[in-house]
Amino acid sequence: MEISGGLETIYSCLKENKSVCYPRSILDQDQIVTIFILQSMASVLPASNTSMRSDRNTYVGKSFVHVKNPYLDSMDEDVLYHLDLGTKTHNLPEMFGDVKFVCVGGSPNRMKAFALFMHKELRLTDSEEDIKDICAGTDRYCMYKIGPVLSISHGMGIPSISIMLHELIKLLYHARCSDVIIIRIGTSGGIGIAPGSVVITDEAVDSFFKPRFEQVILDNIVTRSTELDKELAEEIFNCSKEISNFPTLIGHTMCTYDFYEGQGRLDGALCSFSREKGLDYLKRAYNAGIRNIEMESTVFAAMCRLCGLKAAVVCVTLLNRLECDQINSPHDVLVEYQKRPQLLISKFIKQRLGLCDQTS
Amino acid sequence: MEISGGLETIYSCLKENKSVCYPRSILDQDQIVTIFILQSMASVLPASNTSMRSDRNTYVGKSFVHVKNPYLDSMDEDVLYHLDLGTKTHNLPEMFGDVKFVCVGGSPNRMKAFALFMHKELRLTDSEEDIKDICAGTDRYCMYKIGPVLSISHGMGIPSISIMLHELIKLLYHARCSDVIIIRIGTSGGIGIAPGSVVITDEAVDSFFKPRFEQVILDNIVTRSTELDKELAEEIFNCSKEISNFPTLIGHTMCTYDFYEGQGRLDGALCSFSREKGLDYLKRAYNAGIRNIEMESTVFAAMCRLCGLKAAVVCVTLLNRLECDQINSPHDVLVEYQKRPQLLISKFIKQRLGLCDQTS
Repeated sequence: MEISGGLETIYSCLKENKSVCYPRSILDQDQIVTIFILQSMASVLPASNTSMRSDRNTYVGKSFVHVKNPYLDSMDEDVLYHLDLGTKTHNLPEMFGDVKFVCVGGSPNRMKAFALFMHKELRLTDSEEDIKDICAGTDRYCMYKIGPVLSISHGMGIPSISIMLHELIKLLYHARCSDVIIIRIGTSGGIGIAPGSVVITDEAVDSFFKPRFEQVILDNIVTRSTELDKELAEEIFNCSKEISNFPTLIGHTMCTYDFYEGQGRLDGALCSFSREKGLDYLKRAYNAGIRNIEMESTVFAAMCRLCGLKAAVVCVTLLNRLECDQINSPHDVLVEYQKRPQLLISKFIKQRLGLCDQTS
Repeated sequence: MEISGGLETIYSCLKENKSVCYPRSILDQDQIVTIFILQSMASVLPASNTSMRSDRNTYVGKSFVHVKNPYLDSMDEDVLYHLDLGTKTHNLPEMFGDVKFVCVGGSPNRMKAFALFMHKELRLTDSEEDIKDICAGTDRYCMYKIGPVLSISHGMGIPSISIMLHELIKLLYHARCSDVIIIRIGTSGGIGIAPGSVVITDEAVDSFFKPRFEQVILDNIVTRSTELDKELAEEIFNCSKEISNFPTLIGHTMCTYDFYEGQGRLDGALCSFSREKGLDYLKRAYNAGIRNIEMESTVFAAMCRLCGLKAAVVCVTLLNRLECDQINSPHDVLVEYQKRPQLLISKFIKQRLGLCDQTS
């Protein structure tokens, strides 16, 4: 909405999560600073990005989630089919307008566990039973909202996470979300590091060790950058320094289309290379700076980057691929490993929200 | 086991689903014919493949599921991680030795519904409550067994189904299954055909309309054939002639890595082509013989072919992509559509088992 009123009007708009649009020239520097403070109050968070943007309109100090699709705004209705949500059936700004952190991971159970954990950590007053799967009408993905945190599962592999991301980004766009941070908290195979280590990705690379994602568009191949937010990775890494019970490191992450042949495993139904060739590949990956392998990071980095989401990838390693192929640690050990990225990201979110205790 | 006894011994081995291995020379032609009949009795099914094979040993008349991995037999234990099963923790031959039909589909709920439907159709005596998710220890996939039928979910996209297939094929191999037919019963977008039509795939093609699957192995790309079993497709098509309430056809199926940009949709978070270009691509696909688009068929065809599984792809179309991008038919219509491949495959299985009534 275009406003002509004073700061109170701006504040009430921000509180209701309405977009505020006005000619910049009518405001002086002091007023802009005041609006920043009001925005902080309205969105719980300090405005992390103070640059001016002009995606849909001129907004002050907010980095809005955007789509790169000229057709979307002309659609009468947008059905987010795989999330079982839609612009006509749901009030997306009301349901999701305050989302600031989106955490995604492959397993539905793990993302539910993370939601329950965050509920405890954020000390929210609503009951644990109120945490319901928002996508309960479909079994493709699950989604939980805990205050400003959204926890969503994405299944396994690039195509599965890509469908979820298209619909999630549209959801955040329709809900007019701003300054959203998205973090993949997943599992992976480590290379040359102890099982249970947490890797924060500085670069997502493909099977050829290149920092790129090849997107097939109709019958063309378009190469996209997989650059992640370096400052965000550093900030999460700094959080990890206060956690002493597991090692965390920054490294490259390789993303493959396949768990067996594509990751040099000798234990699939198909294996056409020798033990030596497989090991040589993994060692070359290690020498290229790769510390873990998973199956979603390149498309995740590419899509989030294009749509104004600050993105990070934080995965625990379940085994050291230089030593074995099979994941056969005891169940309780694997369960504990999988909690590590959750613990780290909970700490990061609490710190961002000013809720972090100094003793933990 | 190597046997020296008479036909009774052979029969009891077959009944217990043990492999029967003997020098062919000791049997005359009549005895071989008798063994075929005994095999039919033991496995409920007529032996569909009467050729001699020698994958692990010399078997008579059976086409065993095999792996193409020289390392697998030397492993002390094989943990099928994503199925939560293993060779040391589970007696796979006892649990799965009698499996003759494997039906796979993306959605866990749909594959559970199919299991319950097959339980009714096969008129099995055990209670419906006995149909439990065999993979309940993991949330990656679900699996149900109904007599000789296995119903498994595979999630969305090539990487997700590929992990399941590696572990399923190893499961069938460890369980010494023979003459297994595998059918993907899924959903898809149609091209130039009425929504609700069922397409039996004669050829699975990639985004460039080529009948191939490009598998990345280490840092090499290997091209695999996506040929499906033509006789099986014909047999299923013949079954469909007895079902009058929906149209079934044989056509090419295109398999993509992405639901939005890769399938020419204008309603994703990203869209960089014009309406005309998108439509032109779909029309070219139609002219190349493609009647539907989904996201798993090429790797499914390629892997099953390599491992001795006769494979078919039978998908219902939820919309006509020449007319729209969004799936927005009423919920009950979509639910009914999704039952159509199940109904057809139930008919096919019952016919194979000699259980088909003439009136249906």
